[in-house]
Amino acid sequence: MFRGWQFIEPRAPLKLVEKEDPVPGEREVVVETRAAGLCHSDVGFMEGINASMLAFTPIIFGHEVSGTIKQLGPGVMGWEVGERVAIAGLGLDAPGLNTDGGFGEKVLAKEDLLVRIPEGVSFVQGAAATDAGQTSRKALRVGDVGAGTRVGIIGLGGLGLTAAKMAVMLGAEVHAVEINEGVWPLAVRAGVKRVVASPAELADEQLDVFVDYAGFGTTTAAAIDAVRNEGTVVQVGMGAQFATIDTTLLVAKQVRLLGSLGGSYEDTLDVLRLMKLGLEITATEIGFDEIPAGLERLKRGEVRGRLVATRGE
Amino acid sequence: MFRGWQFIEPRAPLKLVEKEDPVPGEREVVVETRAAGLCHSDVGFMEGINASMLAFTPIIFGHEVSGTIKQLGPGVMGWEVGERVAIAGLGLDAPGLNTDGGFGEKVLAKEDLLVRIPEGVSFVQGAAATDAGQTSRKALRVGDVGAGTRVGIIGLGGLGLTAAKMAVMLGAEVHAVEINEGVWPLAVRAGVKRVVASPAELADEQLDVFVDYAGFGTTTAAAIDAVRNEGTVVQVGMGAQFATIDTTLLVAKQVRLLGSLGGSYEDTLDVLRLMKLGLEITATEIGFDEIPAGLERLKRGEVRGRLVATRGE
Repeated sequence: MFRGWQFIEPRAPLKLVEKEDPVPGEREVVVETRAAGLCHSDVGFMEGINASMLAFTPIIFGHEVSGTIKQLGPGVMGWEVGERVAIAGLGLDAPGLNTDGGFGEKVLAKEDLLVRIPEGVSFVQGAAATDAGQTSRKALRVGDVGAGTRVGIIGLGGLGLTAAKMAVMLGAEVHAVEINEGVWPLAVRAGVKRVVASPAELADEQLDVFVDYAGFGTTTAAAIDAVRNEGTVVQVGMGAQFATIDTTLLVAKQVRLLGSLGGSYEDTLDVLRLMKLGLEITATEIGFDEIPAGLERLKRGEVRGRLVATRGE
Repeated sequence: MFRGWQFIEPRAPLKLVEKEDPVPGEREVVVETRAAGLCHSDVGFMEGINASMLAFTPIIFGHEVSGTIKQLGPGVMGWEVGERVAIAGLGLDAPGLNTDGGFGEKVLAKEDLLVRIPEGVSFVQGAAATDAGQTSRKALRVGDVGAGTRVGIIGLGGLGLTAAKMAVMLGAEVHAVEINEGVWPLAVRAGVKRVVASPAELADEQLDVFVDYAGFGTTTAAAIDAVRNEGTVVQVGMGAQFATIDTTLLVAKQVRLLGSLGGSYEDTLDVLRLMKLGLEITATEIGFDEIPAGLERLKRGEVRGRLVATRGE
């Protein structure tokens, strides 16, 4: 038997339930949860937003999961009981969305979504490397950000701050745009060259790429204005639904505006590689019994970085 | 001596002048003009729009030029007097913009901008293959339109109709969007599968790419709505300055919005290759003495396809 926080239906509180242990099928393993990230999309589901995307209900939430392998199903190769792993869910193919997730003590995981957590990297960081980490990482990849790229990161919330740190580690020259000046020192400490309050202030830099983790519409438009000729703007954030952009400028400068959603297995692997080299995703730990309260904090916008629920062995 | 229509300054009529014959410098040739396209940008210059882009004034306009080589400068290799050529101007590096152009009887051309006009292709088509042709062609290339691509061409004006014909010849499945139903039969005759009045009507097709030669803002937004997941929208037309687009959709569908401006030497070569295979850019011929009147017609929006001034030998 194991316990977990179960979503029953929109606008109802999560319910602590006890369930039979999962039985691993072909090429599946059972992971004993050690850390599970709380996500804005969980808050959304509870308000009825996109709840139809859930494979079934009631379901135990939690799609950013790490832990230790407890049991191997038939046909599993290359994994052993006791290994520290994270589950690199891909879009809707993730625990907490298409099977019971990490807000429960045990999670069934497909072998091909497993990633090893390197020595020296915590379960909290391992969990954050999945959905949040891979989404940050992929947008940099879509924008072809690497050594020598001159990039502007818009929005230093959870994803953006992680992206700024990663871009610095990848050898890019990183500029950042963030309204909240309280975050600026964090960015500078991470190696960001310059932080300003609006993309327009970076126009003189003629940057190669902007990656917009805020997505307030005005940020998209300002990035198109400020980026260099033949530059790229990657859109990740969805802070507002619409943007009014100057298409004559888009044409005259031959700008590329690219939407980026989620990430891949390889992106999670790469985040874990960077974590081994020192990358740390800003996260706050809470206890497993605090998950419902944590989701309330997320909903009220009180959380900086990732909120991750942890449990001991 | 040769004659040409000279631009003096904005809001003044072109003036018929007589000038000394040009002397070809290192790796330059003199082309005797046989056809010269009239362009909306010429109309713009006369109204003072972008006139600062002209290398000098007074200047003889005409940046879509074809004719026969009359004289070779020192160091010219691989070209002979009498050859039928077009001058593939690239952006501002074109006769009529940085040197006297094709609204004059003789034009100085850099050897490396020359392209041969294949047998069976007229001087009118050769001239149209340059600025207009290469701009149409490049946008298809930016959108990666080739054999098997399912593409929607928005706006069947001069560039769009040419693009639709080219896309059919490249083996694409071509759909088109055009408000003016009078043009529909032309498109269907060219092999376009389906013509509709708005991009939304093509949403059920889940096309790979839209290329927007209209650029009315609403067309950009509608193309992003209608294109398939991970599809591409290429922006070429600049009919309006702004577009209000759904950036949450751009992200969720991971759409790429790409600005495309002008074209390359290779694009002009490719247009001429397609012309040899039967491509014809819709064009209306006028006499050289009708150039000022032709620009007036362009300004009033009375012209369908390209207006090309021709002269005999």
